[in-house]
Amino acid sequence: MNFEIKNRDAAGRICRFTTKHGSITTPNLMPVINPNKMIITPKEMKKKFGTEIVITNSYIIKKDDKLKEEALKNGVHKLIDFDGPIMTDSGTFQSYVYGDIDLEPLEIVKFQKDIGSDIGTILDVFGKPDQTRKEAQFSIDETLKRAKKSNKIKGEMLLACTVQGSIYPDLRKKCASDLSKVKGDFYPIGGVVPLMENQKYSDLVNVIISSKKGLNPSKPVHLFGAGHPLIFPLAVALGCDFFDSSAYVKYAKDDRMIFPWGTEKLEDLSELPCSCPVCSRLTSEELKKFDEKDRTLEIAKHNLYISFAEIKKIRNAISQGSLWELVERRANSNPYLLEALKVLRSKENKIWLEQFEPISKNKALFYTGSQTIHRPIIYRVHNRLFSRYKPSSKNIVVFPEGGKPYSTYYKKYIKELFNKYSDLNIIIDSFLGPIPLELDEMYPFGQSVYPYMVDKESEELVTKIYDKFTKNKNVFCWTKNQQLLDIEELKVKNVNFDLVRISAISDMQFGKSASNKLLRGDIKIVKSKKTQKIRNIYCNGKHILSMRAHDGMFTLKIGGAKILHEEFKSPLLRVVITKDAVPFVKNGKSVFTKFVKDCDSNLRPYDECLVVDEQDNLLAIGRCILNKLEMLSFEYGMAVKIREYIK
Amino acid sequence: MNFEIKNRDAAGRICRFTTKHGSITTPNLMPVINPNKMIITPKEMKKKFGTEIVITNSYIIKKDDKLKEEALKNGVHKLIDFDGPIMTDSGTFQSYVYGDIDLEPLEIVKFQKDIGSDIGTILDVFGKPDQTRKEAQFSIDETLKRAKKSNKIKGEMLLACTVQGSIYPDLRKKCASDLSKVKGDFYPIGGVVPLMENQKYSDLVNVIISSKKGLNPSKPVHLFGAGHPLIFPLAVALGCDFFDSSAYVKYAKDDRMIFPWGTEKLEDLSELPCSCPVCSRLTSEELKKFDEKDRTLEIAKHNLYISFAEIKKIRNAISQGSLWELVERRANSNPYLLEALKVLRSKENKIWLEQFEPISKNKALFYTGSQTIHRPIIYRVHNRLFSRYKPSSKNIVVFPEGGKPYSTYYKKYIKELFNKYSDLNIIIDSFLGPIPLELDEMYPFGQSVYPYMVDKESEELVTKIYDKFTKNKNVFCWTKNQQLLDIEELKVKNVNFDLVRISAISDMQFGKSASNKLLRGDIKIVKSKKTQKIRNIYCNGKHILSMRAHDGMFTLKIGGAKILHEEFKSPLLRVVITKDAVPFVKNGKSVFTKFVKDCDSNLRPYDECLVVDEQDNLLAIGRCILNKLEMLSFEYGMAVKIREYIK
Repeated sequence: MNFEIKNRDAAGRICRFTTKHGSITTPNLMPVINPNKMIITPKEMKKKFGTEIVITNSYIIKKDDKLKEEALKNGVHKLIDFDGPIMTDSGTFQSYVYGDIDLEPLEIVKFQKDIGSDIGTILDVFGKPDQTRKEAQFSIDETLKRAKKSNKIKGEMLLACTVQGSIYPDLRKKCASDLSKVKGDFYPIGGVVPLMENQKYSDLVNVIISSKKGLNPSKPVHLFGAGHPLIFPLAVALGCDFFDSSAYVKYAKDDRMIFPWGTEKLEDLSELPCSCPVCSRLTSEELKKFDEKDRTLEIAKHNLYISFAEIKKIRNAISQGSLWELVERRANSNPYLLEALKVLRSKENKIWLEQFEPISKNKALFYTGSQTIHRPIIYRVHNRLFSRYKPSSKNIVVFPEGGKPYSTYYKKYIKELFNKYSDLNIIIDSFLGPIPLELDEMYPFGQSVYPYMVDKESEELVTKIYDKFTKNKNVFCWTKNQQLLDIEELKVKNVNFDLVRISAISDMQFGKSASNKLLRGDIKIVKSKKTQKIRNIYCNGKHILSMRAHDGMFTLKIGGAKILHEEFKSPLLRVVITKDAVPFVKNGKSVFTKFVKDCDSNLRPYDECLVVDEQDNLLAIGRCILNKLEMLSFEYGMAVKIREYIK
Repeated sequence: MNFEIKNRDAAGRICRFTTKHGSITTPNLMPVINPNKMIITPKEMKKKFGTEIVITNSYIIKKDDKLKEEALKNGVHKLIDFDGPIMTDSGTFQSYVYGDIDLEPLEIVKFQKDIGSDIGTILDVFGKPDQTRKEAQFSIDETLKRAKKSNKIKGEMLLACTVQGSIYPDLRKKCASDLSKVKGDFYPIGGVVPLMENQKYSDLVNVIISSKKGLNPSKPVHLFGAGHPLIFPLAVALGCDFFDSSAYVKYAKDDRMIFPWGTEKLEDLSELPCSCPVCSRLTSEELKKFDEKDRTLEIAKHNLYISFAEIKKIRNAISQGSLWELVERRANSNPYLLEALKVLRSKENKIWLEQFEPISKNKALFYTGSQTIHRPIIYRVHNRLFSRYKPSSKNIVVFPEGGKPYSTYYKKYIKELFNKYSDLNIIIDSFLGPIPLELDEMYPFGQSVYPYMVDKESEELVTKIYDKFTKNKNVFCWTKNQQLLDIEELKVKNVNFDLVRISAISDMQFGKSASNKLLRGDIKIVKSKKTQKIRNIYCNGKHILSMRAHDGMFTLKIGGAKILHEEFKSPLLRVVITKDAVPFVKNGKSVFTKFVKDCDSNLRPYDECLVVDEQDNLLAIGRCILNKLEMLSFEYGMAVKIREYIK
């Protein structure tokens, strides 16, 4: 198996997942195939819906003499006529639904291997949400035991070890972490169907997060039994990679149509509120008149179109860096899902999510409601304002929210202010909190779209940050009527605002006092002739930084890297690589995960980093693709994209 | 022309619109057809996208000798090969884009008539958003003058009289009301393209509402130049019936794909986030590789699929009574649209919207965020709590938010309370405000889905209502730990809670003190054996009311109608019909608008009403389809659906 991160947003990721039946992209959805009755064949699914992987049930195959014989003889791929990856389930869910079933844990694993399943599943013990702690403890103990034994006999088959633990976060985490030690290949989160059936999304979020906290981040995670697209975006944002859908056909049999915002009974629809090929071709009246079999088929197709479109939407959102927007939009259409988002507001969960959050994104941050202010990226910049940013003065002049970038919008007034006074720190009292003027072009401060009136919850949170930021400072509030402040306390001295800007961004991006180290000496700033924006920064004649126009952050240059390397002690800003990889990096090749020895735990996805050897010699500079946790656990994929190397 | 309301929600409506080229359903979208270059023919649009009506430009036809000749000879329907209704535009927009054009106002109207347009448009004077009041005044004066003259020569053609007035609400309203007096057939709201281009949705909402306030409610309203589905739901909720889209092709030429949540450049899409036939068949990579012409065509198709799907979504939402949910969900995906929703919160706008809001809906009210509490139906029930509801006691026992219906959820405790005390009024401190226990099954109190934690804005509004409601009362707060309140002040008397419930609902539904009149005498309550819920109410042996299970409101029976008719003076609860219609109503036929003489201005869509003749003789009872404003202005369609008549 090969599983590597190609792109990412939130704690979600786009990965390449390789099996002996080919490579596919995650997040992905496996339609459930009932070998006894395929309403749509896997082959047709591949052609029409872009299905890349399916799941079928080995217990059902084993139970039926004819299917069993055929599967053992020709393999499961022939049996259901599909040449892509096939996952098999073990019968755990059947034991949950029908009670005790006659099945030996190892026997079913061996059977899955014998029929050539790409991913076989252990016979875990289903942990119901209403279990007592003791019962849950038993279910995870037994599951772990079986996983260990199963792993020994799996052969070339990838083994899915299902995380249980009911709704006890500590048991989930423990189970996940113990199962990770077993070194399975694939980690379903099990026991969640009853939560989804009852729309207990807050519990579901807790279960996913606690499982993820315990799991090895380099393994594919499957939300077992999740087939309704309503929860796909949130589950992906929390790090789930796979879903499986029997819902497409189960719902269809009941005349229920799946939509991204929920489910609708066909009888309740006066028109089909959808653009899929089925709904574009048929009217609601026509569909209602179909005989049962045809109607089920058409609705099943609709359900698949919608489910796969949602997967595409999610992957596109990850590429664009707008996954949180998608998550929030979906939550706005279901009160229970909205409720579940609030689980992410706890400090513990914010800290966990922040680790995976990219440093900047391709798209501006869009406000969707009171949940937006709680996004990990805003949590991060608020934290960094206090831990990394150093105000240039105790005298704070506060400008109200205005057009962006603020330094352009308020240009005239700012110029007048700086002409008269200079010992001052201008901040904008913005919707995102206090924004120092010099950070006004940095992501997300400069790249965010807010309504003029924000909800009270955001206002209150932001006011707290503002109060903390301005505490013990001399605050002067500026308004539009006030052409020029007349404040005698402000001292007049010569200030270079460009330098203030560069310092502030350096501190926010590279850490506290980074500017003190980087900007010691003769600084030369080169601006774009066209836009008059800062482009390159030289220190003592050496190119140290370049400014990226799209997110207002720095790309590190060799000159700057050398300074930071000298001034900041290991492991700060470093990715340490093994000996074997040194010659490659010295030739400008990227760093792959298996060659990472260590890493600064403060580096975040897409952060600039120093690549060093085990003796801390600076080799190159690059952009992290992964955080420390991931670099040290993934077996495949790029850890750092090298940009410049020392010749 | 024939234009009649078939279904409704918010201030939006589903209407049947009949022209000499057939009937269509509104809200609807007219794709713009350029007779010089049809990238998709109207015929193909009809077949593939369900297009029912198109719009083309008479100015472009007239300017081109060949097109002009052909159109005059064979008619515009032959020219573009479409047998459904065709609207023509006049060149106003061209004069806005290109400046002065060589066109006589009456000449272009005559030309539209001559080529057989179903709906021709006057050459109005485009009112730009940055006009001064004086300029806007000139533009509406001139527009009105031209409308008057044009109307005289329109012949059988329906005449579209475009409302102008820039962004001045009073001028918009004046223009709309003056144009209504001209008795045109169709009312576009013009001059809005620059507002949409700049996402000035708050201004757009003000323009739509002020225009609608001045317009005759029985005429179709067209939001001229609106082709992006993002604003369709809100525009429909405010009473727009038609949109026209040149965006589908204009955007396609620029590789821009339209989505319900906004626009995306093809180059920014790693995957096509959509289930339409184009996006289900092609990948983003494949589409990018198409040559320009094919790419434009495929994107144009995608844009049409999405636009028409949004229209279907809206119509379905109207049927389900969930249009506000759709509006709010869209607004959550665009901060400017969210901002625009706040315009609806002014008291004046709430009052305007409330008139059109149905009494109850087919679907439960779903919370989507801080805007939900401002919906007209909640505004209405809050008002009625103060103007119609009469608390049964000064002693209020407050229960916290809980499961629904509250009377079942808190059954045990309530029973204990009522066993001990009776001079008390139990209310639930709910997310929707204080809900008297006896109203717990009434829409929307019993039919609403909220998260456990509500946003602070809703909380604050609801707290105000709660404070007002409990002012000068003796309030006792009940909590779960408290099995039974021990309050000596509460007096013990015998109370019939069913009667309390019936009284409260009667007052809320039929008006202040309705219960005093209705429930005088010997009351018998018949309950469902299965559910134990109230079904029928008899007074002195006469059937007066039936309870509807789905919305917890009453259907009026003849016995009750007679009492209300006697006790409430005209025009209360009445719809007065003309002499001609009396024999029909006496045979149980519905009341059509042209036979309505007068109507109680407090009746709301789907309210129960008394149908009387001009001498105030009670003829029948029925359910209003329209409010007073509409009953007196619509020429066609049902005003009251009769349920029972006096034989």
